[in-house]
Amino acid sequence: MIIVLKAGVTEKEIQAVITEIEKQDYKTHVMHGVERTVIGAIGDERTHRNLESLITWEQVEQVMRVQKRYKLVSREAQPKSSVVPVREVPIGGKKIQIMAGPCSVESESQLMETAHAVKEAGATILRGGAFKPRTSPYEFQGLGEEGLKLLAKARDETGLPIVTELLSQDHAEMIAEYADILQIGTRNAHNFQLLIAAAKTGKPVLIKRGLSMKIEEWLLAGEYILSNRNPNLMFCERGIRTFETYTRNTIDLAAVAAVKSESHCPVVVDPSQGVGRSDLVIAVSKAAIAIGADALLIEVHPNPAEAWSDGAQQVDLNGFKKLMDEIRPFIAAAGRE
Amino acid sequence: MIIVLKAGVTEKEIQAVITEIEKQDYKTHVMHGVERTVIGAIGDERTHRNLESLITWEQVEQVMRVQKRYKLVSREAQPKSSVVPVREVPIGGKKIQIMAGPCSVESESQLMETAHAVKEAGATILRGGAFKPRTSPYEFQGLGEEGLKLLAKARDETGLPIVTELLSQDHAEMIAEYADILQIGTRNAHNFQLLIAAAKTGKPVLIKRGLSMKIEEWLLAGEYILSNRNPNLMFCERGIRTFETYTRNTIDLAAVAAVKSESHCPVVVDPSQGVGRSDLVIAVSKAAIAIGADALLIEVHPNPAEAWSDGAQQVDLNGFKKLMDEIRPFIAAAGRE
Amino acid sequence: MIIVLKAGVTEKEIQAVITEIEKQDYKTHVMHGVERTVIGAIGDERTHRNLESLITWEQVEQVMRVQKRYKLVSREAQPKSSVVPVREVPIGGKKIQIMAGPCSVESESQLMETAHAVKEAGATILRGGAFKPRTSPYEFQGLGEEGLKLLAKARDETGLPIVTELLSQDHAEMIAEYADILQIGTRNAHNFQLLIAAAKTGKPVLIKRGLSMKIEEWLLAGEYILSNRNPNLMFCERGIRTFETYTRNTIDLAAVAAVKSESHCPVVVDPSQGVGRSDLVIAVSKAAIAIGADALLIEVHPNPAEAWSDGAQQVDLNGFKKLMDEIRPFIAAAGRE
Amino acid sequence: MIIVLKAGVTEKEIQAVITEIEKQDYKTHVMHGVERTVIGAIGDERTHRNLESLITWEQVEQVMRVQKRYKLVSREAQPKSSVVPVREVPIGGKKIQIMAGPCSVESESQLMETAHAVKEAGATILRGGAFKPRTSPYEFQGLGEEGLKLLAKARDETGLPIVTELLSQDHAEMIAEYADILQIGTRNAHNFQLLIAAAKTGKPVLIKRGLSMKIEEWLLAGEYILSNRNPNLMFCERGIRTFETYTRNTIDLAAVAAVKSESHCPVVVDPSQGVGRSDLVIAVSKAAIAIGADALLIEVHPNPAEAWSDGAQQVDLNGFKKLMDEIRPFIAAAGRE
Repeated sequence: MIIVLKAGVTEKEIQAVITEIEKQDYKTHVMHGVERTVIGAIGDERTHRNLESLITWEQVEQVMRVQKRYKLVSREAQPKSSVVPVREVPIGGKKIQIMAGPCSVESESQLMETAHAVKEAGATILRGGAFKPRTSPYEFQGLGEEGLKLLAKARDETGLPIVTELLSQDHAEMIAEYADILQIGTRNAHNFQLLIAAAKTGKPVLIKRGLSMKIEEWLLAGEYILSNRNPNLMFCERGIRTFETYTRNTIDLAAVAAVKSESHCPVVVDPSQGVGRSDLVIAVSKAAIAIGADALLIEVHPNPAEAWSDGAQQVDLNGFKKLMDEIRPFIAAAGRE
Repeated sequence: MIIVLKAGVTEKEIQAVITEIEKQDYKTHVMHGVERTVIGAIGDERTHRNLESLITWEQVEQVMRVQKRYKLVSREAQPKSSVVPVREVPIGGKKIQIMAGPCSVESESQLMETAHAVKEAGATILRGGAFKPRTSPYEFQGLGEEGLKLLAKARDETGLPIVTELLSQDHAEMIAEYADILQIGTRNAHNFQLLIAAAKTGKPVLIKRGLSMKIEEWLLAGEYILSNRNPNLMFCERGIRTFETYTRNTIDLAAVAAVKSESHCPVVVDPSQGVGRSDLVIAVSKAAIAIGADALLIEVHPNPAEAWSDGAQQVDLNGFKKLMDEIRPFIAAAGRE
Repeated sequence: MIIVLKAGVTEKEIQAVITEIEKQDYKTHVMHGVERTVIGAIGDERTHRNLESLITWEQVEQVMRVQKRYKLVSREAQPKSSVVPVREVPIGGKKIQIMAGPCSVESESQLMETAHAVKEAGATILRGGAFKPRTSPYEFQGLGEEGLKLLAKARDETGLPIVTELLSQDHAEMIAEYADILQIGTRNAHNFQLLIAAAKTGKPVLIKRGLSMKIEEWLLAGEYILSNRNPNLMFCERGIRTFETYTRNTIDLAAVAAVKSESHCPVVVDPSQGVGRSDLVIAVSKAAIAIGADALLIEVHPNPAEAWSDGAQQVDLNGFKKLMDEIRPFIAAAGRE
Repeated sequence: MIIVLKAGVTEKEIQAVITEIEKQDYKTHVMHGVERTVIGAIGDERTHRNLESLITWEQVEQVMRVQKRYKLVSREAQPKSSVVPVREVPIGGKKIQIMAGPCSVESESQLMETAHAVKEAGATILRGGAFKPRTSPYEFQGLGEEGLKLLAKARDETGLPIVTELLSQDHAEMIAEYADILQIGTRNAHNFQLLIAAAKTGKPVLIKRGLSMKIEEWLLAGEYILSNRNPNLMFCERGIRTFETYTRNTIDLAAVAAVKSESHCPVVVDPSQGVGRSDLVIAVSKAAIAIGADALLIEVHPNPAEAWSDGAQQVDLNGFKKLMDEIRPFIAAAGRE
């Protein structure tokens, strides 16, 4: 770490900082600048005590990290891009995968109609929420296990693997029994106990970016999966919270390129949540592919106006077919399939 | 709800919207403006289907709520301010309570030294983390149940009730056995399963504001406690995430006045997390009291530079005494004790 | 406008609001809901007094607009997309235009080398800053009129029209003499006097989005150009300020699709400012084209490490050639030239 | 500056960086860590070329500043707090000054009524806008010079010095003729040409914080005043833009303490803009005083519901009297007058 001292500190004050740093088993290296003295603390920042607390000392102005905080998710640890196998559907390879389906599973007919339609239009994975995290306790909370059973049935009928959200540690085993990918939602991206529970099921895990999660924190959330011995991790950009209100969230597409550059894990983009309005979903899907997404996650509903949750961002069956048609040239332009 | 149609829609398109609204059991009321037609959907928005999905229709421009989404936490439901009893310490009454203690419980000596010192300086509740949510899996995760036992011992010695964080549903019972207040941390403020588990213990619950939680969402998180039959709820402002980097978070003190005005529940302020740097904690504490906080939550450590977590924001024992001295005139100015 | 009253107001309080609204020459329309009364104020919101101040009345809970605040920039005013003529280079037509050049004009050799290189690689417009808005008064402020002369010379040599920033009303005439497009920078996007001065030169104007400008405000800034009788307006997305620090700004590509949908004016994307790091510029350029940008604005420098301003975000001459090669398939996929 | 190289760079790559740094007249100092090499560039960062562009080099991972970018506004340059003289009203001394008056000057009667009322209630400076920056070109733009004349007349009648906004370089002289303090509004906080023009009038300047201005940038904006030989500078916190919509802006009161700690210049707080709703203005005023503000800026209107601009945030004459009464104990608690 680098410790910058204030201008005008005494030799004794410098020495006190050095003594404290060495007490934490770092070696020190002092640099005298024109105005300020800088101390390098040499040692592995991930195994030594964090020195950031030194900032509470009167004579210290800044404490800066030198190393990256994440390890296993980084390209330094594994330069080659990972491919996550989901039944016969590999995510992160040459083929761009399309995950599609309703925000919530509402009924057998709603799910089956959607599942068949998205498959026919070219989707390769089925999404659907059985347990829903809702801002208000008075809103529809999902069908629960009944929803999982319907998803499994839809998989049987269409052959599409399924992705569904895990929102309680208590459900980890149950959901792992039905699902092919466990999704960690944006509101739980910082729920480390849930991340660990998901990792331990051994199933592929998709971590949505938290509402106000920095890229570094998101990578560290992923580190919770890999360090719990589950190698099958995907990141999913779904928009962050900003001052803009035209869209429900601000989708940070540059983050896709950033994570692809920092990490070997596949990156999925969720345009539906990202903008929260169905009229922009196709445009964002094209851009997501152009910037390097490995997969898309699209909310599709036979009748969005009557959806039990988040209708505003779901496209209808025709809209999804149109989307699949319109993204095709961009998949080709990206050299993908 | 209010549905605004686009300029230039046909009578038939208007009729289609009306039919859909009435299908959801709302009554309708049509208003023709100079440029746009507006439809009022009359019915309780909390028990009827949300009409926001109508925005997916071509002819619809805006859908706006009329009612507030929260009920039990609101002053409409209970005009008089609630007082939460924590052993003999009432929160929300005339006396401003000071919760103080280390970020993490690190050892018996560290905790006991702090507990005695904060009590002597005037603190009325002891805080301390036994289970810690950490951004990186490689950071100190807390002493666990061992930490809870030390907290209970400190309570026995000092008489101070204790507040500690609950971060896993699996720990709800265990923590409720030791703690007098269950704290829901900022990273779990949207973890509804955890909120329900906390509510069900019957212990007082303190909900920190999520990193990027709107005031309305925060009140709705509180609604999860009250609607699960636990009346003892406190909100705690601890800073939100913005573009500013001088402070770790941006403490939103106006939110204290806002929540006091919307809700009958007590509001606590955490200046330590709020700014993330100990040099500003006293100043923020004064402002928190001036704006109407019912209690403060202050991180105190005998030696912040060697703290195992968040040292930069902890004040030392002398700093805490100074804080208590300096806030006294503001407590008096606020007409509190 | 729609005025929502609080629950439990008296008939007299309702009447007082109605009287006030009618005093402002709106017609009123009352709707009684299950819990709240809603009053519609019927009249053109752009020519009548704004009623938002009614919120200061005890009995009023919300005041909501019904109409859009912008007029001339909207597709309601002009459904067909505008094409802005810049010498022989039309912006907003089928061909995607590439504006490229250094952040600052530093010297004749630096500019000429860059101008010839970008032209050869396929750029159609030359960018370069002569007057630079700098956060610190101690940083390089641009070559001033000397820089403009060099830009004119580069145009003579290469035939490329030039775009350069206007940052002072006092320079409007001078810059209009040299430049083909006047750029309003992000820090001046809310500087209405400058917008008016730019409009009045009659030259095409490019308005960058302000650091924290909502899409609605950005469109209204454009309204200042069109309502000052200058029809040649372009919007330029260049990233907004958020909590993320990995990139210098967060580029909001969905805003491109949003503005294209709300407005008939062309939209330009500036990936260089948008991310502030040259390693992500190509990826963002591809996405910008995929999502519907009419032009790109790329910072190019022969030796970014020695640039006098914003070196981190400038690509070098080879990097620009690579960019032009890599975006080509996406231009084709978008059905553009 | 500190340059951190990537893990695994070769000796030759390190040498190339050193050569480049020395070319810019810095001395270098190399530190080999466990994983990364760090180079210190020793030299005054404010007079040498900025090395941040080195980040474009393949082998460079981070470039970090060591020195602060501001000089004249800092407490390092002047440890003692400045007092800005405004006629007989010193700002920054023991006495807390209250600036009050309407958002816009609308008419002689409106202004005179307000001026007399605020004076009687204890205000010491009169505020009022004559030139208004408005988001929409269709909104009231202020009375212009006519408004300035009315302000001067109100000063003659009440003896209160006046503060009014400067929003165009062209008006600097005219406004300086009438006003005692020139206010730079939030939308122009990054308009450096305007800052210079304001500084050159020699009148005291009050810089509002930009909508999304970091504290460091705000201090640097102040540096534009002091480095243009005008010593009479005040900063004014008026809320920043965040995701929260309950309040119009998020007032960052900790920034008051931060600026007081970094700079010797007085700090003013504008609660009216800060929250944008009159019901919270008194509460925020108390907190502002508690946290160390030297003055408040309060919008007052005889009839806010009919104000020509920003009625929602203006208090009426009685509200202002109540405010003055309620803040008194906090002024005493702060040891001020």
